[in-house]
Amino acid sequence: MKEKRVLNHGRIRLVEQMGGDGAVVRAARRCWRSVSKGDASDHRLLVHLLKHNHGTPFEHAVFTFDIKCPLFVARQWFRHRVASYNEVSLRYCVAEKEYYVPDDLEPEGRITYDRTIRQAFEVYDRFLAEGVRKEIARAVLPLALYTEFYWTINVRSLMNFLHLRLAPGAQHEIRVYAQALLEILEETMPVTAKCFQENALNPQVPSREDGP
Amino acid sequence: MKEKRVLNHGRIRLVEQMGGDGAVVRAARRCWRSVSKGDASDHRLLVHLLKHNHGTPFEHAVFTFDIKCPLFVARQWFRHRVASYNEVSLRYCVAEKEYYVPDDLEPEGRITYDRTIRQAFEVYDRFLAEGVRKEIARAVLPLALYTEFYWTINVRSLMNFLHLRLAPGAQHEIRVYAQALLEILEETMPVTAKCFQENALNPQVPSREDGP
Amino acid sequence: MKEKRVLNHGRIRLVEQMGGDGAVVRAARRCWRSVSKGDASDHRLLVHLLKHNHGTPFEHAVFTFDIKCPLFVARQWFRHRVASYNEVSLRYCVAEKEYYVPDDLEPEGRITYDRTIRQAFEVYDRFLAEGVRKEIARAVLPLALYTEFYWTINVRSLMNFLHLRLAPGAQHEIRVYAQALLEILEETMPVTAKCFQENALNPQVPSREDGP
Amino acid sequence: MKEKRVLNHGRIRLVEQMGGDGAVVRAARRCWRSVSKGDASDHRLLVHLLKHNHGTPFEHAVFTFDIKCPLFVARQWFRHRVASYNEVSLRYCVAEKEYYVPDDLEPEGRITYDRTIRQAFEVYDRFLAEGVRKEIARAVLPLALYTEFYWTINVRSLMNFLHLRLAPGAQHEIRVYAQALLEILEETMPVTAKCFQENALNPQVPSREDGP
Repeated sequence: MKEKRVLNHGRIRLVEQMGGDGAVVRAARRCWRSVSKGDASDHRLLVHLLKHNHGTPFEHAVFTFDIKCPLFVARQWFRHRVASYNEVSLRYCVAEKEYYVPDDLEPEGRITYDRTIRQAFEVYDRFLAEGVRKEIARAVLPLALYTEFYWTINVRSLMNFLHLRLAPGAQHEIRVYAQALLEILEETMPVTAKCFQENALNPQVPSREDGP
Repeated sequence: MKEKRVLNHGRIRLVEQMGGDGAVVRAARRCWRSVSKGDASDHRLLVHLLKHNHGTPFEHAVFTFDIKCPLFVARQWFRHRVASYNEVSLRYCVAEKEYYVPDDLEPEGRITYDRTIRQAFEVYDRFLAEGVRKEIARAVLPLALYTEFYWTINVRSLMNFLHLRLAPGAQHEIRVYAQALLEILEETMPVTAKCFQENALNPQVPSREDGP
Repeated sequence: MKEKRVLNHGRIRLVEQMGGDGAVVRAARRCWRSVSKGDASDHRLLVHLLKHNHGTPFEHAVFTFDIKCPLFVARQWFRHRVASYNEVSLRYCVAEKEYYVPDDLEPEGRITYDRTIRQAFEVYDRFLAEGVRKEIARAVLPLALYTEFYWTINVRSLMNFLHLRLAPGAQHEIRVYAQALLEILEETMPVTAKCFQENALNPQVPSREDGP
Repeated sequence: MKEKRVLNHGRIRLVEQMGGDGAVVRAARRCWRSVSKGDASDHRLLVHLLKHNHGTPFEHAVFTFDIKCPLFVARQWFRHRVASYNEVSLRYCVAEKEYYVPDDLEPEGRITYDRTIRQAFEVYDRFLAEGVRKEIARAVLPLALYTEFYWTINVRSLMNFLHLRLAPGAQHEIRVYAQALLEILEETMPVTAKCFQENALNPQVPSREDGP
């Protein structure tokens, strides 16, 4: 299975895939009761669909990913509603003590950052030891904490995600996940990925749909 | 590929499948950071999910079907919005002259039925020969006409379709499609199909969401 | 209430409205914890949102319409899944004998057209009189028949509908409905309508998502 | 406008409403081309719809709420995908220092809790003062932090939210929000609220769709 390492402890793993470039072409050609007419013609068809915003044929290609990312990234991620999510619950699981460390802190800032997060982890552990329920104790945990979830999404919705999260205005920490997803798309649906990058991916678009 | 014949000219063909029983169990267990614990335990888990309406794990199992059904059945079918559709277009294709014939017409009624529909087909052909655009000429075509579409749907949404369209109040002509879909579910996701039939499928529910 | 006549027997009636331009501005400014800063600033904000595809603030303005249109137009309409539909059912109601007449038939073609549809109506009535169920008898009815439905949709999804159905490639019969909807948008959300027409409405886009 | 205080600093405020009991009845009766037949008959109709899972008529009644809740509650809330969200962004806004305090901490635990969260706030402020970007500095902030968002949702989806989040297995901190929402529903759509509580609200259902 394809797996990409992202940030200091994150990952994107391709778990399952359905459809692919062929499924998009097949669905689009159903409209005219026609079938694939060779690579060059199929390529032109995909370019046409992407340029003219005919998204439905791309819904027949579907991926399931296994994602690990910081909570503040997951908060942006879960804004994308046309997708399926199943995430580790801190009501039932004890948090693993893995957290994101940004590259751009000064040495002293980094020490403060680590100490603050580790103190929160210690308080969390002490609360659990004293019998505080996990769902309450987690309130002290920081947004830097990593979470894990399965994510099933069709390629139409994935391209929308990439369009918004690869934009220069998107936060760096989610852009690197979007970049890894684009690489997996290139490896698994090369024709769609190429047409998408040449025709629909607009690098000038800033993204503002965000959560704390 | 699995294919079921339905009504006089219809069909349901399984084109692609992703996930299956294992994907549902895997997604549900992510919540507790656990993995499959054997068949008996997995079976109990699926029963629990279905009884308590925890639908999201079933979204990671996805099917693409190739459907052929009468227009009045398709009108009911397309009311289900959590799914993807690509259909033959009568703006671009000439209609094939296949139509549904109900079993329950008297012999004379059957003659009238056939004659009425064939006259409509003749007028349609004459209009096309005279240069009327296909998108206009189709206005005389009857709701008995068959159409074809690709349908991609996750198993949560499919179970909702089955729940409503297998109900005794659903129209016979869509119930036989729902029955064929249930058979394909049994063949491809036996544990989910069994739990669904025993715990979530309520045969007393009439269905009224319909279109002319 | 605003009502527009469309085609020979159709209509669009505005039943209810929530939000409006102010709701879009309010939702967009929540991101920065700011509030409306006057008309010129609000106008610039809406242009920015539309140009950069930030659609979510437009979801807080919602309309309910009462639509009457031919079946072949409704078949295209119901492809738009982010909206709510409740339609007259020909399982429970007897069809009213109103049908669409295209402008562009020759005199002789028009006579044939009327005769074909009226014969279908007569057969339908005879079937009902003989005890055939309504849900079966309708199979002979033509796609020119009018139907009626309530349609609740937020303005983000409505703009997507307008974008696709005002395009020159869209079928004339649905374009005139889209034009009437745009007029209602202009009358009820003038700032959004203006920004949409100047920044997001691309008249070069053909539409192919259609049904027979 | 109706406003409910929830938890120590939270709130639910009803911003706008469209439709109401009348819109549900009107949409449901469109199916039969009938209109309201008086209160008793309308009440029976709503009971029938709820018992038999006919959800679409409830989609024509829509609310916009202004919500303020802790981040760990918002993480559960945003799992509900059939709704519209616009939230304060900590990429653009400085976090306000309001946080949730659980009732059930021992006195010493409470002191530790407050100290841990205040230290995180101090480090956050220091980072901002030193020029760390807001989107990075927030990584140290705790899940107890309050956030604010506009939430537009139709009553079908709202009833699903209430069904899952009023269940005894739901976390207390989101149940009190669900309780406040149910009170607003009772005040604004009394017939729907009554039918929902008597026929569709199942208090035995635990909820497990959660996030850390």
